[in-house]
Order: sequence, then structure tokens, then C-alpha cells
Amino acid sequence: MDTQTKNTNIRDIIGRLDIFQECNATFLDTLAQQSKTQHLKKGQVLIVHEDKAKRFYIISKGLVKLYRETLNGTQAVIDITAKNNIFGETSIFHNNTHPYSAEATENSIIISCPLPLLKTEIENNPKLAIVMLSSMAKLKHETDQELEHRTIQNASQRIGCLLLKIANQNSKKSTSISLPYDKALIASRLGMQPETFSRALKKLKKETKIEIKGTTVTVDNISQLSQYSCIACSSEFPCKDL
Amino acid sequence: MDTQTKNTNIRDIIGRLDIFQECNATFLDTLAQQSKTQHLKKGQVLIVHEDKAKRFYIISKGLVKLYRETLNGTQAVIDITAKNNIFGETSIFHNNTHPYSAEATENSIIISCPLPLLKTEIENNPKLAIVMLSSMAKLKHETDQELEHRTIQNASQRIGCLLLKIANQNSKKSTSISLPYDKALIASRLGMQPETFSRALKKLKKETKIEIKGTTVTVDNISQLSQYSCIACSSEFPCKDL
Repeated sequence: MDTQTKNTNIRDIIGRLDIFQECNATFLDTLAQQSKTQHLKKGQVLIVHEDKAKRFYIISKGLVKLYRETLNGTQAVIDITAKNNIFGETSIFHNNTHPYSAEATENSIIISCPLPLLKTEIENNPKLAIVMLSSMAKLKHETDQELEHRTIQNASQRIGCLLLKIANQNSKKSTSISLPYDKALIASRLGMQPETFSRALKKLKKETKIEIKGTTVTVDNISQLSQYSCIACSSEFPCKDL
Repeated sequence: MDTQTKNTNIRDIIGRLDIFQECNATFLDTLAQQSKTQHLKKGQVLIVHEDKAKRFYIISKGLVKLYRETLNGTQAVIDITAKNNIFGETSIFHNNTHPYSAEATENSIIISCPLPLLKTEIENNPKLAIVMLSSMAKLKHETDQELEHRTIQNASQRIGCLLLKIANQNSKKSTSISLPYDKALIASRLGMQPETFSRALKKLKKETKIEIKGTTVTVDNISQLSQYSCIACSSEFPCKDL
């Protein structure tokens, strides 16, 4: 692909992102011109927690795990993020250091963009600042809810909540869900040891009659699943917080 | 106190807050004029999760617990916040509904301010939007770290981390810490049952030789406490994240 085609692709992807809907064409053109595509192999680490930040990233294809790690290598997963999501942009507010590490959990294509350009645009375009503020408030609220679930829900209820997030909440009859990534990754996203996850999943199957084959989960009765999980949550079902 | 004196007091408190440092006098005067002081008894509930939001609040004296509650009354504490802190302002980004409930955990005085005024100022003053964005990013980062600790640290290490947050990290010799609120409240802030908290505190005393009398904690060797807690954390000691 020649440079012109590559830039057009990057410009298209950037232009479609919700976060940039309040930005004008001049900014988007400049951002696209100064950005580049990067291919990551599964397992490749892109940024390391507390390293100096010069770029932020948009996922064009694949999956990226955001995490923090103790000195002895124990990981806490902050998020697993997919296509059309942006990450690394909050380093602007952390003295230009990355607040987390990022690793591709499958072969991925990302767009690497210059951070100073975004910073200047936020300072000059109040509408972008408000879009980002709103998106950050949503993220903070989701993290608060996750913390609530760690306090109140048992492991099986937390898996049930994840399934409800993926399922069509309004489905009355049997519904099939594709797990977004493999079970080991789901376990780490939920902050569970693999053994805890296996035991909790077994219990969830027994309590709610869901069936699991490979990465496909069949839920016969979605209200049975919601009754089981949402009793230990401050949000009512159907969930406005999903 | 007459209305004039009350307004001067409110104007002084508002004017000193970090969050409003980028706002001009006209906005601060108008905000003060449209705000009012409210006295809350210990245990009094000020706002309820998902209620329509018309005001935001500044604590002038006392302590306020922000929390969410399941239908059967189990609580998850989001924060316990003190003098000069602001709360309820993020409802702007949640369709003007409160994302949490708030209750005074001791007799408190708060300043109740109109939300639409803040919303308009954020839209018109990009510098305020950036201050709020930065403050929101910090809060999100703290919540991420708390989630990390729930995953990686044991209960005793989490209590140790809280003590390190209050202590002077650079103190080489013996240091005394006053607990900011009673043990039951600390347990709920850390998402622990009171029995878990008691057992974990006993273990922490044994492992790190801290002493506790009433609400005073004496730490003989702060590096022993940090070695014990920070080994299960992605931040190094002394902690930049505190």
C-alpha cells in the first residue's frame, strides 16, 4: 500500500471515532498525516507503565490488554479493549507517563498518533474537552461499578454480569452469546485465578441452566441469569449501566 | 449570621478550591450567590443514587460517604470524602442523575450549588474543562489502583496501604498516624466485612510491628510497613500514586 492510501485509511478510521466528532477537518487531516499504522504480534508489549508517553493509540484490528504489574510479575488487568477504541491518551494527565502497560493479546493493527497534537486540540477545542470529560466520567463510573461487584457479587455472579453485558438484554427467549475472548483472558479481566473462574463457571451453569460449548454460551432464560447476578448489584435489570 | 456574611463565607470557600482556580470572579460571585449552606446530622442521606440531580456539593465541615446500594440494602462504598472536596458534579455526565448516594457519616456542613451553572461554565471555559478532566483522570487512576489492590493484595496489605497513604512516606523514624475515621467506616471503605478487617489488622500488627491505641497508629519502621504492603502493588515506594 502506498503512503497516500495508508493515510486515507488512517483518516477514515480517525474520522469515524465518536471521540473526534467535535473536531474539524483540519485537525483530523493533520492528525492522520502525523499518525502511522503499527502491526503487533500476539503477546507483543507496546507500552510499559510509567514510561514516558509520546503517542496515544487507536485499535484498528485485534485486542489489546491494558494492565499494571508488580515487581514480581503479578498482573492486574485494567481493561481488554478492541477495535475503534483509543488508549494511552490519559497520560496527558499523568505527567506524560503511561498509567498502564499495553500488550496485544492477538495479532493486532493499531494506529499510533502523536500525543502533543491531541493535548493542544483539547486545550483549544472546548467541545473536545467536554466529549473527553464525558467519556472519562463513563469510564470512572464503570470502574466504580466493577469495584462494587468485587465487594458484593460472588465470582459466579460476576461472570453472569459479563454475559449479560454481551447478551441482548431484551431477549425473552433463548439467546446465543459469543465470548469476546478466551476463558483465561476473561478470568484475568475479572481479576480471578483460572481455578476460581472454572469453579465459578460450573456453579453458574448449575444455578442458571446456561450451556457452554467452546466460546459459545447459550442462555435459555435471560431473566433467570439476571435474577441470579443482578440481586447483588445496585443497578436494576435491564441495566442502564451496561 | 446575616445573608451578606453567609454569602461572603461561601464565596471564600468556593474561591479557595483548586477546581475553580481557572474561573473568573464573575462566575465565582454568581455561584456563591446561588449557593446555600446546609447542615446535615450524622446518618442523614443527602442524595440517592439515580435520583434527578439539580445541585452539586462542597463539604465545608465533616465527612460524607458516597455509596451505592443493592435492593436488599448491601452497600458498596465508593469514597469517604472530607472538607473542601466536591461531589455530585459528575451527574452532568450521567443524564443529570446521581451516579451514587451520599450520607453524612458525622454532623457536617455542606454548600449546595446549582448544577446548571457549573455545566454552562464548563461549556464556556475550556480551562475549567481541562482542570476537571485532569481531576477525573486522577480519580479514575485511583479507582484502577484500588481494583488492582483488590486483585493482588491481601486484606492486611490493603490496610497497610491505607496507613501509608496517611503517613509521611519519607519519615525514617517512628511516626504516629491518626485514623481519619472509625474502624467500621475504614472497613467499609476498603470493601471488607468488619470481621475480615479485625483479623487482617491483627495480622498486620504481627507482621509489621505497628501499634494501635484507639484511633492512633504508631509505625516504628515505615519501610517495614511499605515492604509488606507494596510488594503486592505495581507502584514503587515512596509512592507517586498516593
